[in-house]
Amino acid sequence: MGVFGSIRVLRLRAGFWESIKSGLLKDDTTQVIETSPEPQVEEPLPEEFVLIEKTQPDGAIEQIIFSSGGDVDVYDLQSLCDKVGWPRRPLSKLAAALKNSYMVATLHSIRKSPEPEGGDQKKLIGMARATSDHAFNATIWDVLVDPSYQGQGLGKTLVENIIRALLQRDIGNITLFADSQVVEFYRNLGFEPDPEGIKGMFWYPKF
Amino acid sequence: MGVFGSIRVLRLRAGFWESIKSGLLKDDTTQVIETSPEPQVEEPLPEEFVLIEKTQPDGAIEQIIFSSGGDVDVYDLQSLCDKVGWPRRPLSKLAAALKNSYMVATLHSIRKSPEPEGGDQKKLIGMARATSDHAFNATIWDVLVDPSYQGQGLGKTLVENIIRALLQRDIGNITLFADSQVVEFYRNLGFEPDPEGIKGMFWYPKF
Ligand SMILES: CC(C)(COP(=O)(O)OP(=O)(O)OC[C@H]1O[C@@H](n2cnc3c(N)ncnc32)[C@H](O)[C@@H]1OP(=O)(O)O)[C@@H](O)C(=O)NCCC(=O)NCCS
Ligand SMILES: CC(C)(COP(=O)(O)OP(=O)(O)OC[C@H]1O[C@@H](n2cnc3c(N)ncnc32)[C@H](O)[C@@H]1OP(=O)(O)O)[C@@H](O)C(=O)NCCC(=O)NCCS
Repeated sequence: MGVFGSIRVLRLRAGFWESIKSGLLKDDTTQVIETSPEPQVEEPLPEEFVLIEKTQPDGAIEQIIFSSGGDVDVYDLQSLCDKVGWPRRPLSKLAAALKNSYMVATLHSIRKSPEPEGGDQKKLIGMARATSDHAFNATIWDVLVDPSYQGQGLGKTLVENIIRALLQRDIGNITLFADSQVVEFYRNLGFEPDPEGIKGMFWYPKF
Repeated sequence: MGVFGSIRVLRLRAGFWESIKSGLLKDDTTQVIETSPEPQVEEPLPEEFVLIEKTQPDGAIEQIIFSSGGDVDVYDLQSLCDKVGWPRRPLSKLAAALKNSYMVATLHSIRKSPEPEGGDQKKLIGMARATSDHAFNATIWDVLVDPSYQGQGLGKTLVENIIRALLQRDIGNITLFADSQVVEFYRNLGFEPDPEGIKGMFWYPKF
């Protein structure tokens, strides 16, 4: 069940959109399965924590760190986007988008050298960000993991933890627009396409 | 063609999502049909302007004013939401959502009395708001028009003008999640559901 095993709130399916509109997840449309002083999430998540620690053949230690603190260098992000083949975006706009996202979650690899003077190497290997009205809705954009780190559960952990961080801030309606090739990835994570016939729509000028 | 008759930019269909990701609407994926020093929109829109002016039987003048300036009283908004039958939301969260929306567009009716001492009456009759990263994406939420003002083109004008205001701020990717009963309303306005298989998805806890 991963990180959500500890979530004790059950939102009722009926009136899904109504419950979102009302923003009254706790009062109106949820049932607390267990009694607890903090019904939403069992224990608050720190902003930054170690996901994985591995000793490498050369004795170096590699840690994978999750953070929802938003500390990401725009050049590092650009080179990560290059790695997954996304078209280049103007750096000034990318920096503005990071600054004005409600939450920027990152995965960093930190390699601690076995040599005493070797120092640490820190590398951005994943990111997801969310826009929000800080109250009801958040929308997740730009989820990506460095190809050499894909396929080991990091994308899943990244999204699970940005969800968890959003829930902790009491954002009830977490949405995204998924490319067709990642719809199943998100469905596995508990996202439903078109619930009750709600459609994601994009505007563009008519010919 | 309404308000969009004056937009001179043609975004090419091919590579739709790529063009959004690149954020390079002007450079990469658009063709300027006419040459102009300001290719996106012909003339900048003022933040506030009169849409309609009508003289009523008693001699009073009613103006309908569009504004993208975000000046909306949270109690007025609550009573407007009541009128369309939306479930009540906590006022503190509603106020936070307004404050943290990138754009809040409103329609007000202003009734200017024919009596010299009669004064003006100002009433909120419509609203739409958008969250955004201030750079690439905006998502429109909470579009509504007072039922006694529906069916005369105001909902359409409201959405057209919030789109126009977003384009003027160089936001290329304008999205929303439409309830099934308003998908056609938005399609008429130039929104496409699921372009290239992109799916709107909502997260909720598993049972
Ligand atoms: C999509 C992406 C973030 C997944 O990251 P990842 O670290 O490789 O994914 P994980 O290893 O955490 O996968 C978790 C689960 O999802 C599955 N999965 C991964 N990618 C998938 C996909 N495209 N479709 C369906 N399932 C997928 C995995 O098989 C795994 O399943 P399991 O739990 O049954 O073992 C990554 O492939 C990526 O960055 N892609 C390029 C950018 C992109 O397309 N982003 C999303 C659109 S904006
Ligand atoms: C949806 C809503 C904003 C439309 O406002 P409105 O002022 O009545 O709409 P307009 O008069 O501008 O309609 C413009 C066009 O859309 C059409 N239209 C209006 N509502 C429609 C609907 N639900 N489905 C399909 N078409 C619709 C009109 O017939 C008109 O067509 P025309 O240009 O061919 O004449 C309004 O009905 C409303 O506030 N509804 C309640 C709240 C809501 O459901 N909001 C949207 C979901 S969050």
